[in-house]
Amino acid sequence: MSKSNESAEDRLIARYFRPLATAAGAFGLIDDAAALAPPPGCDLVLTTDGVIAGVHFFPDDPPEMVSRKVLRMNLSDLAAKGARPLGFLLSVALPAGSSEAWLGAFTAGLAEDAARYGCPLYGGDTDHTPGPISVSIFAFGAVPQGKMVHRSTARSGDCIVVTGTIGDAAIGLKLRRDRTLARRWGLAAAAAAELEDRYLLPRPRNALADAILQYASAAIDVSDGVAGDLAKLCRASAVAADIDVARMPLSDAASAALAADPALLETALTGGDDYEIVLSLAPQKLTAFRAAAEAAGVATTEIGSIQSGEGVRFLQDGKLLTFTRASYSHF
Amino acid sequence: MSKSNESAEDRLIARYFRPLATAAGAFGLIDDAAALAPPPGCDLVLTTDGVIAGVHFFPDDPPEMVSRKVLRMNLSDLAAKGARPLGFLLSVALPAGSSEAWLGAFTAGLAEDAARYGCPLYGGDTDHTPGPISVSIFAFGAVPQGKMVHRSTARSGDCIVVTGTIGDAAIGLKLRRDRTLARRWGLAAAAAAELEDRYLLPRPRNALADAILQYASAAIDVSDGVAGDLAKLCRASAVAADIDVARMPLSDAASAALAADPALLETALTGGDDYEIVLSLAPQKLTAFRAAAEAAGVATTEIGSIQSGEGVRFLQDGKLLTFTRASYSHF
Repeated sequence: MSKSNESAEDRLIARYFRPLATAAGAFGLIDDAAALAPPPGCDLVLTTDGVIAGVHFFPDDPPEMVSRKVLRMNLSDLAAKGARPLGFLLSVALPAGSSEAWLGAFTAGLAEDAARYGCPLYGGDTDHTPGPISVSIFAFGAVPQGKMVHRSTARSGDCIVVTGTIGDAAIGLKLRRDRTLARRWGLAAAAAAELEDRYLLPRPRNALADAILQYASAAIDVSDGVAGDLAKLCRASAVAADIDVARMPLSDAASAALAADPALLETALTGGDDYEIVLSLAPQKLTAFRAAAEAAGVATTEIGSIQSGEGVRFLQDGKLLTFTRASYSHF
Repeated sequence: MSKSNESAEDRLIARYFRPLATAAGAFGLIDDAAALAPPPGCDLVLTTDGVIAGVHFFPDDPPEMVSRKVLRMNLSDLAAKGARPLGFLLSVALPAGSSEAWLGAFTAGLAEDAARYGCPLYGGDTDHTPGPISVSIFAFGAVPQGKMVHRSTARSGDCIVVTGTIGDAAIGLKLRRDRTLARRWGLAAAAAAELEDRYLLPRPRNALADAILQYASAAIDVSDGVAGDLAKLCRASAVAADIDVARMPLSDAASAALAADPALLETALTGGDDYEIVLSLAPQKLTAFRAAAEAAGVATTEIGSIQSGEGVRFLQDGKLLTFTRASYSHF
């Protein structure tokens, strides 16, 4: 309930946020609200996700990585739904005394990714908080009318495909928390850095959105661990899944860590922050989908199949894996 | 970075949030994102506003008032832009150990207002935070294409009109902070309660949105004090305003407080949380607008006029008022 000179807030907005508000309907952030002309024949896809210092990122993470991470978390949701990004609103709460340098780096990173993903800022809300830095983003995208890809529409007999590699971010988080692990696992410095970087900065698969829209029967972004997110997809679709653990795509760095500590397999499969996409599709569509994914520059791997029944079975050398925790949750 | 049993989160969502997700495109909150079919011929109007315990509300405020307040803050922005509410997304961060009773009351209040204003929940994000309770809402509404009412389009010669009464919430906040003031000001208990209630629960003027759309040349919702918000409207429109302080609409309760302590006039004009609307319109439209407002059940008062030049002049008995603070800001 502080009072402040309004021109100071105006100056911060003009200097740091206005350059991101490149859409006409953002009105240069001078109004109370933005206007969005929806693309004809499209539904809007709406999602929100946020981060809190000390919960979802480390307080000393570079500010440009914090802003890029939270935008990319939202972009990952849009990608999994087959949606093309249109823009976002931003809500930021900063502790009193936050430096302008922090805000400058935060918005510079955000500007970079807003341009990269074609997802401009439409508006926002800034406040001071007695708590930790908190950032929420509300992102919106477009799909052809009625075509949003759901998690609830997988069918028995479908193939299951995952993008990229699984487990890097969760193993990277372990390294970030305890840097002696890299030596204990015998990881090269570059491999350890790569894993930490996967935790710091998601690689959302927006390049694959069109192929998902065209070929997937169901999809979900992998933010809470592939085991947990597959379980959600199966539960929503009232189906089961068989996963061949040997086919789960792992980076060389993750493979090296797992070779040193096989218990990391559970970390890889149930940890969070992958920001990959797991999807189901009819087997006869697999070849065309894989070609579209290759054209989009996104690696994809078939890891199993949808079955009737319920639950996700992770099979390794013919044995069923069980996990102490099925899923990662911030709540 | 806690792990929790996913079914616990599912259960909370199902029990407390799903009843609010009445729109078809919310998919009962079982997906990662919502789909919104935009009304044909309309632009979407997008806004976000939030509250933090200890900053925008008191930690012991009733939870059903906290949720209703933050939704209504966003509804007020939509109303000022002439937009009809379509729905909202919700981001909630709760301290660990928050009671389910708090969440139950919070969502019950939200459900009541979502139904009242025709503004259903489309999705959201819940987290635990080491900081205070934080709630952000992203609300979206619709206006006919290209018709959003701006703050930057007031014209010299326009009348200035304000809805409802001004200053109640700011005086109510003073009472909330120091309850001995009611006696010192000689306020009846009912009057003091009314002022506190105006702080606790905004009365957004969504009933007036159609009339604003039809008649206003410019509008802004009064959230940071009528002086500061009028200054924003004038700055954005590159005009000045003359305000006749004697015509400023005050409630009987606020008038009684001002009679006891004339210094409260500055509080009334520069304090926050009115959630009224100040708008400009061509003089020849005033009669029709007033009739539309009356039909909508919203009191309106002409308080001055737009002039060429810059700045807002508050005139009382022929003298120019100056304020130590022009506007209320949370940042």
